[in-house]
Amino acid sequence: MPELRKDPIVGRWVIIATERGKKPSDFGKEAAFKKSGFCPFCYGNEDKTPPEVLSYREAGTYPNSPGWWTRVVPNKFPALQIEGELNKQGEGIYDRMNGIGAHEVVIESPDHNAHLADLDDKHIQEVIWAYRDRYIDLKKDSRFKYIVIFKNHGSAAGASMEHTHSQIIATPIIPKRAIEEMEGSKRYYDYRDRCVFCDIITQERLSKIRLVEENGEFLSFCPFASRFPFETWIMPKRHSSSIENLKKSDVVDFAQILKSTLKRLHTTLEDPPYNYIIHCSPCDTSESPTYHWHMEIMPKLTKVAGFEWGTGFYINPTPPEHAAQCLRDVVIEREETQPPEEHAPDRSAIIAG
Amino acid sequence: MPELRKDPIVGRWVIIATERGKKPSDFGKEAAFKKSGFCPFCYGNEDKTPPEVLSYREAGTYPNSPGWWTRVVPNKFPALQIEGELNKQGEGIYDRMNGIGAHEVVIESPDHNAHLADLDDKHIQEVIWAYRDRYIDLKKDSRFKYIVIFKNHGSAAGASMEHTHSQIIATPIIPKRAIEEMEGSKRYYDYRDRCVFCDIITQERLSKIRLVEENGEFLSFCPFASRFPFETWIMPKRHSSSIENLKKSDVVDFAQILKSTLKRLHTTLEDPPYNYIIHCSPCDTSESPTYHWHMEIMPKLTKVAGFEWGTGFYINPTPPEHAAQCLRDVVIEREETQPPEEHAPDRSAIIAG
Repeated sequence: MPELRKDPIVGRWVIIATERGKKPSDFGKEAAFKKSGFCPFCYGNEDKTPPEVLSYREAGTYPNSPGWWTRVVPNKFPALQIEGELNKQGEGIYDRMNGIGAHEVVIESPDHNAHLADLDDKHIQEVIWAYRDRYIDLKKDSRFKYIVIFKNHGSAAGASMEHTHSQIIATPIIPKRAIEEMEGSKRYYDYRDRCVFCDIITQERLSKIRLVEENGEFLSFCPFASRFPFETWIMPKRHSSSIENLKKSDVVDFAQILKSTLKRLHTTLEDPPYNYIIHCSPCDTSESPTYHWHMEIMPKLTKVAGFEWGTGFYINPTPPEHAAQCLRDVVIEREETQPPEEHAPDRSAIIAG
Repeated sequence: MPELRKDPIVGRWVIIATERGKKPSDFGKEAAFKKSGFCPFCYGNEDKTPPEVLSYREAGTYPNSPGWWTRVVPNKFPALQIEGELNKQGEGIYDRMNGIGAHEVVIESPDHNAHLADLDDKHIQEVIWAYRDRYIDLKKDSRFKYIVIFKNHGSAAGASMEHTHSQIIATPIIPKRAIEEMEGSKRYYDYRDRCVFCDIITQERLSKIRLVEENGEFLSFCPFASRFPFETWIMPKRHSSSIENLKKSDVVDFAQILKSTLKRLHTTLEDPPYNYIIHCSPCDTSESPTYHWHMEIMPKLTKVAGFEWGTGFYINPTPPEHAAQCLRDVVIEREETQPPEEHAPDRSAIIAG
């Protein structure tokens, strides 16, 4: 059973993998990706993953068999374990609890070599629907306090599998970073009676210098205080605290701006490793006027060193205004906004396992 | 002039290098270390660095010439600039100020190929005296609110120069992480009327399971809620808030435990890249009963991925109890505690430039 432990000084929780503890000899010997030729995420290998919890697939096909285009399965090596009780305990001055939580993998496409940004708009919409559907389902489990949806692309960004996928982790505590965002945005709201994220949107749309792209429902921009070169955020223009209330038009526009923002990064930085993370409000808060969900995309171009680790203070060698200019300059060919229905997956054929 | 910018949501400051802004083509092409054969930190190349601010050198030798064993110079490419005013400004809802601060390099040894852990005890003591002397001097500048001393070892840990060195950065704001530590330890003190760090020392000495080593004045141990595999902290047993009050016996014991802890990590993990950071209280607090200075050593064995970036919540695959056991098992040959004086640098010969 993994264990959650709390730092007694700053209150930061960590997950300690007590069972499959890595030995000194386990580090540093990993190649970028295992080139064994076998991939459990590939089409036809459905029995090599734990049984699926959701799939979008052709009508008449069965769970854990071919016929899918997007599939969600429990992580075979989960950071947190779904079964059990929290069993909160002390050890002298220290606090710990069992590592209870959910850890799922969203296999975005059956194609091993596809990049998320290369999937067609409709397929990316399906990935977003999968995020939303799993988010809503996991939120029903009262043991979970926070749900994070993220993607690691490239081994330098921490991906251990090459096949395009995202991950969802539900945690039994609200992580430090989420508390900071909730408290910070509440403080702003208390002072100004406005949402800080809505104010950011207004200012970025006006000044345009950090704007990357805008469509009906969304904005992508390089934030004023970017920690990393080419850090780019995608934000819904309409205030909402989590992805659970996404409407169809939101999903269409989110898919479009996600695809083209990733393509801009891909073109500008030659397929950079990156992480993206969807930030939503904690499970126990419903729609709130102070918190505004968004996605943070962080290309991994520089190494985080002692200064950053010691202070939480980042040195960014590329001003966000320069980064946004480079990203805006990429020419993006748009798909037709309504792809012909015969090529599009049929959402009525969705089977949840 | 670099710029400090504040994230309006969580209040995190970043340093934006506005002048030497990195272009997309500047990333990803750096080799581990430049193998040009020329190193400005090497003996005899003293005129290739900015003029030294401190050196410990043979009597009768001159600043910025040979004769030194430890030398401190301003960073040629500083993250923050020493000259100027803060000039705090708003930009709509955003806050910024000039990137004023100090950024110095401690060249630990004249020998290009030396590792810090391979220097003799007396030489490591000199490095620590250099840290302390520069700390005390920088603290006199009332523009500076915080001083961080750190080391990046190996390119994976963010080092851009191979020649063994540490860095000192003085910042005009108190970084987020320092505020969190100050507030967290104060909260603990308010509740229990004891220093949390002193309590950690008591518990680790009693339980011994995470203890790596102990000498007269110091303890090294793997912390209960380690973020990273083999994370190891060194802490003075006597309560003190910063390194400015180090006594001679402290420096002797700190050098000894730093050397042998680094040797243990080196042996166990085959010369891992690592960062170490000295955490002291902010400049405007003198000795305080709530804060206790210490050093955090973080080997870089795993990659930080989307989950960690998104939540501030770390997954550590090696329990600190296993790590401490491995580190304890390394056999360390001790130097005599009092090396013959004729081989030891003569502190009376110190020249501050």
